[in-house]
Amino acid sequence: MPEGNNTRVVLAERPVNRAPVEGDFRIERVPLADPADGEVLIRNGFLSLDPYMRGRMSAAKSYAEPVQVGGVMPGEAVGQVVASRHPAWRPGDMVLGNTGWQEFGVLPGERITRIDPNLAPASYYLGVLGMPGMTAYCALLYLGEPQPEQTVLVSAASGAVGQVVGQIAKIRGCRVVGIAGSDDKLAYVRDQLGFDAALNYKDRDGGTKEFETLSREVADCCPDGVNVYFDNVGGVVHDAALANIALHGRVIVCGTIAVYNELEKRDIGIRWMRQLLVKRARMEGFLVFDHAHRTEEFRHTMAGWLSEGRVTYKEDVAEGIESAPRAFIGMLAGANRGKQLVRISQD
Amino acid sequence: MPEGNNTRVVLAERPVNRAPVEGDFRIERVPLADPADGEVLIRNGFLSLDPYMRGRMSAAKSYAEPVQVGGVMPGEAVGQVVASRHPAWRPGDMVLGNTGWQEFGVLPGERITRIDPNLAPASYYLGVLGMPGMTAYCALLYLGEPQPEQTVLVSAASGAVGQVVGQIAKIRGCRVVGIAGSDDKLAYVRDQLGFDAALNYKDRDGGTKEFETLSREVADCCPDGVNVYFDNVGGVVHDAALANIALHGRVIVCGTIAVYNELEKRDIGIRWMRQLLVKRARMEGFLVFDHAHRTEEFRHTMAGWLSEGRVTYKEDVAEGIESAPRAFIGMLAGANRGKQLVRISQD
Repeated sequence: MPEGNNTRVVLAERPVNRAPVEGDFRIERVPLADPADGEVLIRNGFLSLDPYMRGRMSAAKSYAEPVQVGGVMPGEAVGQVVASRHPAWRPGDMVLGNTGWQEFGVLPGERITRIDPNLAPASYYLGVLGMPGMTAYCALLYLGEPQPEQTVLVSAASGAVGQVVGQIAKIRGCRVVGIAGSDDKLAYVRDQLGFDAALNYKDRDGGTKEFETLSREVADCCPDGVNVYFDNVGGVVHDAALANIALHGRVIVCGTIAVYNELEKRDIGIRWMRQLLVKRARMEGFLVFDHAHRTEEFRHTMAGWLSEGRVTYKEDVAEGIESAPRAFIGMLAGANRGKQLVRISQD
Repeated sequence: MPEGNNTRVVLAERPVNRAPVEGDFRIERVPLADPADGEVLIRNGFLSLDPYMRGRMSAAKSYAEPVQVGGVMPGEAVGQVVASRHPAWRPGDMVLGNTGWQEFGVLPGERITRIDPNLAPASYYLGVLGMPGMTAYCALLYLGEPQPEQTVLVSAASGAVGQVVGQIAKIRGCRVVGIAGSDDKLAYVRDQLGFDAALNYKDRDGGTKEFETLSREVADCCPDGVNVYFDNVGGVVHDAALANIALHGRVIVCGTIAVYNELEKRDIGIRWMRQLLVKRARMEGFLVFDHAHRTEEFRHTMAGWLSEGRVTYKEDVAEGIESAPRAFIGMLAGANRGKQLVRISQD
């Protein structure tokens, strides 16, 4: 059994109606815990940072329990088993589990899954081959039902989910338009990922454009309307997309990062609900957990696309567990370039 | 060929960002038109008044063309053929057609359908056996997919669509909660139609209750959440329903009468969109025209339910074509009791 310390990040304070700041987190060094009977001790290699974690920092009721103040921030990580008191696992096994933001995690043997680092880099199981990739795959194909020649619009287009959504839509023969918040992100999705068009939701001063401007720009990029809007953000970008929804269009409500900091205040804004009626459109909420039965189908398909080079994938890696709060805050503000990870150990 | 005059109601002025008033309409008396080759002349018995007509008075783009200023208000009517220059029709035939708000209408023979007054009173083809009944039937069963024991919430519960929605939901074994704007409407849906509960969205002063109050009252009436919300109104009632939507709930966006007078200003309000995500709920717009292929199924089923007494139906009849504007304005304000009709001739 290894001895020593474990560095972890806990929630120090809940941000209410504001963006999180570093003072909302606290770095703690604690003695390494021993696994109990049926548990394993994992040394993390990579931690995933995802927008949904902002929701867990809030006391508001959602699809999962909030983190307690003083509790370890939740999050999925890939790592190596270093000690096992569970018959299925041995030291050296590469695994995926929700250990939270820490160097070492102890989890019941049933709560971790094996990953195959020969199929793809271990970190990919936190992104294109993991929860964000599967979110893109299941939500786009099963809720969005994109047809060849149709226009698919995706917000947070260069993010962990958005970049995969656009590439799958291209594989399906769609016209793909991305929305992102900086010129280099627009260039990335157009030039590297093959999106047909991209537009910036921010103005030159870095503020979010007004609805009228955004709506007109969406109309310019989507002259036949938006058949599928993959919504990772909510807010005014959502409104601009819905204002341009095509007949029988589909809106996938996958993320609401634009209003995360206002959750306590409620989701307020122009919603263009009448467009759903006029266009007989469908808007549907999505959580990847409901599609767990499609995991094998997804991994098999996506691994194939990756090996054929039909899907490319970009990661943004922060170094060391102590960098997690800053990287998380930056990601919520759109500073990341690709899937945000934290490298916890080099091996 | 009959000779004489035809009384009709035309749009005099578009109401913009306000409720329609009688001055927006003009009553005209004009010489009776002769049917051209392929056309029939119909003497109307009953005219249907429906909330969607408010949308046609607006210049805003919707699923149908606006009425032109000076044009006859559109609307379906049942009546009798009095002259025919079309081989399929003979004087005396009872028909349904969109003649608009007038005593006599001339329509191409292809644009009218035969009704069977032996199956049900002719006026029923404008309501429970017509467009409102078919809206209730197709939207509830095909979009709402209500399951036994589930809770179905319906707004404008005593209206032409709402009263049928609730009764079909009861036939399907659901718990049905209605929302309406007066105590006698609540009593009607509870005592006459067998709804399980009903709540008033208006306070004692006749104003619409605040979101917090409405949301709490919906929660009280729907302790297990709302599995299907049949939305005939939009606005704050919509928000209160969505705040209480159950896991995997379905919202049918069928009408937005609460925001009709603000269409030019846009559909603004708290929309609780994040609830769609958290509850993986679906919201879908509905227009009955998309379900034309289900007309026979609907008529057969509904006629059966009516004859078995499983569905009852209430009409609110104004007398004379001149009364149409006042009856329409009253209906938009919720003054009607049951499906709003205008009796144009006695035979």
